Amino acid sequence: MSVEDMTQRAERTDLAALYAEVQQFYAQHMHHLDRGEAEEWAATFTADGVFAPPSAPEPVRGRAALAQGVREAVKELAEAGETRRHILTMLAVRTCSDGSLAVRSYAQIVATPHGGTPALFLMCVCEDILVRQGGRLLVKERRVTRDDRP
Amino acid sequence: MSVEDMTQRAERTDLAALYAEVQQFYAQHMHHLDRGEAEEWAATFTADGVFAPPSAPEPVRGRAALAQGVREAVKELAEAGETRRHILTMLAVRTCSDGSLAVRSYAQIVATPHGGTPALFLMCVCEDILVRQGGRLLVKERRVTRDDRP
Amino acid sequence: MSVEDMTQRAERTDLAALYAEVQQFYAQHMHHLDRGEAEEWAATFTADGVFAPPSAPEPVRGRAALAQGVREAVKELAEAGETRRHILTMLAVRTCSDGSLAVRSYAQIVATPHGGTPALFLMCVCEDILVRQGGRLLVKERRVTRDDRP
Repeated sequence: MSVEDMTQRAERTDLAALYAEVQQFYAQHMHHLDRGEAEEWAATFTADGVFAPPSAPEPVRGRAALAQGVREAVKELAEAGETRRHILTMLAVRTCSDGSLAVRSYAQIVATPHGGTPALFLMCVCEDILVRQGGRLLVKERRVTRDDRP
Repeated sequence: MSVEDMTQRAERTDLAALYAEVQQFYAQHMHHLDRGEAEEWAATFTADGVFAPPSAPEPVRGRAALAQGVREAVKELAEAGETRRHILTMLAVRTCSDGSLAVRSYAQIVATPHGGTPALFLMCVCEDILVRQGGRLLVKERRVTRDDRP
Repeated sequence: MSVEDMTQRAERTDLAALYAEVQQFYAQHMHHLDRGEAEEWAATFTADGVFAPPSAPEPVRGRAALAQGVREAVKELAEAGETRRHILTMLAVRTCSDGSLAVRSYAQIVATPHGGTPALFLMCVCEDILVRQGGRLLVKERRVTRDDRP
């Protein structure tokens, strides 16, 4: 094996470590959201984390506001009798010069009325900046755009 | 690089090895199911594997019963003129104290009538216990819940 | 740890490196396609790359023809006022004896009319041969089959 081959192999192993960690992070993150675990979900953002959702006039800033958003959504979904799932796929992970990760992914939001048929509610693109704090990944910034509002 | 950094790096490499193996396992597992490969699919469960599907009154136990379930589904789908796909995403993988893996994921079941338009048939949560036997992962227990029957 | 355990562990680490690289490759590949980046997308095929789409009478051969196909699709989608996303999941990755990779996956194509509701447009199976050139993965052959035309 040449030095070049070994370097490429090491790079692939590093990418693999990062890529799996990011996938696991998003799985836990979205499971929290879809179970209505407001505090746990907010804790996967940095303390000053910013989420610019596609349907809100202003970005949501900080864990208290992020958790509050989840609690409101939980209430609305309970009243509507509906379960929602957030499915992130096609993750393109890029390490930035400051060590943060820029992750671009597709987000399917599936809505299922209780007693009814599931349907794709929104198709979005999610652009995140993830940072590592205390060994764990956290969302520092999230920008989501809806395919129906290009 | 500090000892702490090295430890975290080793943990991430271990997670990556496991995470990729689990993803590959599920891909092969669901390809078997969706191609109607009843015996091959059943062989990805342990001999005493249990599958608690959301629509059945009782869990299905053991490979013979699991394979029989696939053969019946194949027959029904052929009569209906429909293809189904099982798409597992958002895998959260946790190693239990006994070495088994607890995997929670989202399952989209897509149904396409031949000559027609694909549609989301069911949106489910899949909770598996995977164990390693002879170097290979196998499903020991599966519990699936439907979003329309919360 | 036994020699057998160490060998299996090394194999899993190798699979992980490959699996993450393939996932990242497809994410970038489909982001190019869905953003209409015709040249960039075509450059992720080999120079003599072949794409046998399910709806075309003949396979598309070579980067110029592949890029032209994207430009035509971009024009049609702009006229229709629609955004499309290609979501590849359930990747089963197999290393062939010649070192190429055979990857079988599920492809959901989601179409969102601007101002409207997203819907699953096509459900497909994608069978690729990937090869490594200059350290990068490229698609050498792609065969896509539609679930509505089995």
